[in-house]
Amino acid sequence: MAAPPDTLAERVLAGDPRAVARAISLVEDGDAEGVVLIRSIFPRTGRAFLVGITGVPGGGKSTLVDRLIATIRAKGKTVGVLAVDPSSPFSGGAVLGDRVRMNAHTADRGVFVRSMATRGHLGGLARTTGDAALVLDAAGFDVILIETVGVGQDEVDVAQAVDATVVVLVPGTGDDVQAIKAGIMEIADVFVANKADREGIDRLVHSIEGSLSLQAVPDRAWIPPVLKTEAVTGRGVDDLWATLCRFRHEREPARADRRRARVQASLRNLVGELLLTRLEAALPTGMLEHLAADVEARRVDHYTAAQTVLAAVPLGPAKTP
Amino acid sequence: MAAPPDTLAERVLAGDPRAVARAISLVEDGDAEGVVLIRSIFPRTGRAFLVGITGVPGGGKSTLVDRLIATIRAKGKTVGVLAVDPSSPFSGGAVLGDRVRMNAHTADRGVFVRSMATRGHLGGLARTTGDAALVLDAAGFDVILIETVGVGQDEVDVAQAVDATVVVLVPGTGDDVQAIKAGIMEIADVFVANKADREGIDRLVHSIEGSLSLQAVPDRAWIPPVLKTEAVTGRGVDDLWATLCRFRHEREPARADRRRARVQASLRNLVGELLLTRLEAALPTGMLEHLAADVEARRVDHYTAAQTVLAAVPLGPAKTP
Repeated sequence: MAAPPDTLAERVLAGDPRAVARAISLVEDGDAEGVVLIRSIFPRTGRAFLVGITGVPGGGKSTLVDRLIATIRAKGKTVGVLAVDPSSPFSGGAVLGDRVRMNAHTADRGVFVRSMATRGHLGGLARTTGDAALVLDAAGFDVILIETVGVGQDEVDVAQAVDATVVVLVPGTGDDVQAIKAGIMEIADVFVANKADREGIDRLVHSIEGSLSLQAVPDRAWIPPVLKTEAVTGRGVDDLWATLCRFRHEREPARADRRRARVQASLRNLVGELLLTRLEAALPTGMLEHLAADVEARRVDHYTAAQTVLAAVPLGPAKTP
Repeated sequence: MAAPPDTLAERVLAGDPRAVARAISLVEDGDAEGVVLIRSIFPRTGRAFLVGITGVPGGGKSTLVDRLIATIRAKGKTVGVLAVDPSSPFSGGAVLGDRVRMNAHTADRGVFVRSMATRGHLGGLARTTGDAALVLDAAGFDVILIETVGVGQDEVDVAQAVDATVVVLVPGTGDDVQAIKAGIMEIADVFVANKADREGIDRLVHSIEGSLSLQAVPDRAWIPPVLKTEAVTGRGVDDLWATLCRFRHEREPARADRRRARVQASLRNLVGELLLTRLEAALPTGMLEHLAADVEARRVDHYTAAQTVLAAVPLGPAKTP
């Protein structure tokens, strides 16, 4: 009973929430219908403001996002939220216990919240999230918040697909904080020191500012500000939103190089994914399995096995189906 | 003044620490010489016990690894440690402030510690870490500990490349703990509730055990045990090591399916990476850049652009250089 793609695209463009939900599911499942849909809505995208929100688990990101929704709605703008979950290689399922909080907004047509599982495959997370954001963009949402859990490569990938990245830290995250900062220092456009009522908040702010002064900042005209918030009470959240808007209008247009580099990287990933899919379809049945067994038994190393796969399949230009 | 690969391989096999360091650098840089090296040492690998250690930042993983090194050394076994850092898309550099602690072991030839940056490219982290582990394996280290920072896809990828995965949690990581557990529940072979002196430790243990009883456990003969440790004092670390050894001897051999699946996945990723590298070398100069500009300007969508790239390059079998 799937709607024909044209109709689904039209309904997405009209902002129908059920069509948006269905479209994101198609995208998430890697369905061919999803690709057709993205193609047809693509010319109508590029208007929304994409904000990534990342940082340590336990940093209160969900509460912050919840508050940010309220602030943005109070300015008369609509908001789509993508909450990206850590993936499981087995179930691929999305479970976010704290999503329940966002239910406060469910009666509001100006808010759309969606949890997404990160997929284990090639370029999976960044592309799926990017396509889901295109759906929300086409549906007319003014702002799209992409919340990620964790501080790894996933977050760096997502940061490359948004207009502005907020990195959330909290006092007292302990001995690994150096390591976290080393990784995400350069993706932050705005730092948030959340749980500002906690002991150690000033030390945290100084430590971030200290690291900023030590590291090479890519854009001297925008030193990422460090804002204090208290997501539970909402303190500092209006200021966060004002800072994001200022960033968007003052600095984001000057980042054409960064934007181009990220489009190129995502295109490269997509090409890789399509290539691999085509290769797998063309491989003799069981070839990958047999070679993997040989590698496991140490009869052949993985590099030689990979070369064997490549040599087996002359990949020509795509045939029109 | 690089040593010829044969000599380097021989020196790695002889356990020369400088050769091991150089070999890992080659692997990390994606150097062709690194591939030659891995090929020549590969038949001499497969003996080491690979243990992944992951969990929330601030969980005290580094201290735990440090204690584990001491325990393993006390049993007369040698240990290699790979500390995997979050990556930066800009610098790619590795900074781990707390690595300094491991200096206690620097005079011991039976311990080798190395920080590694996670690379942004395709299958980068899992493959680079896997190859570095092969180097340590070939050099004769009995146990290889792979410590990751964060709880994202990186950690899931690394978990697929080791024999046993330890997931470290601490009391009071707050409101995102549900989300973390959902993602890494299924990769854990052993749970560690660290900082056992803290308030909330029993609640944490019960909460992990509760989640385990709710989720589908892939192997009914091994329900992941939840151990309490206090890494700072070393309490519980001997028990952790004994549990890992028990897992290795009792359960790991029964996991042939899992092992085969992970070899297959890593082979698939490697093929994808080689394909993409070959494609890029064959593309007309500037094609990817021009298409990315078209996508950015919304003149063409990314799926159509990717198809254009694929259609432009008939990829045949690899030519012998």
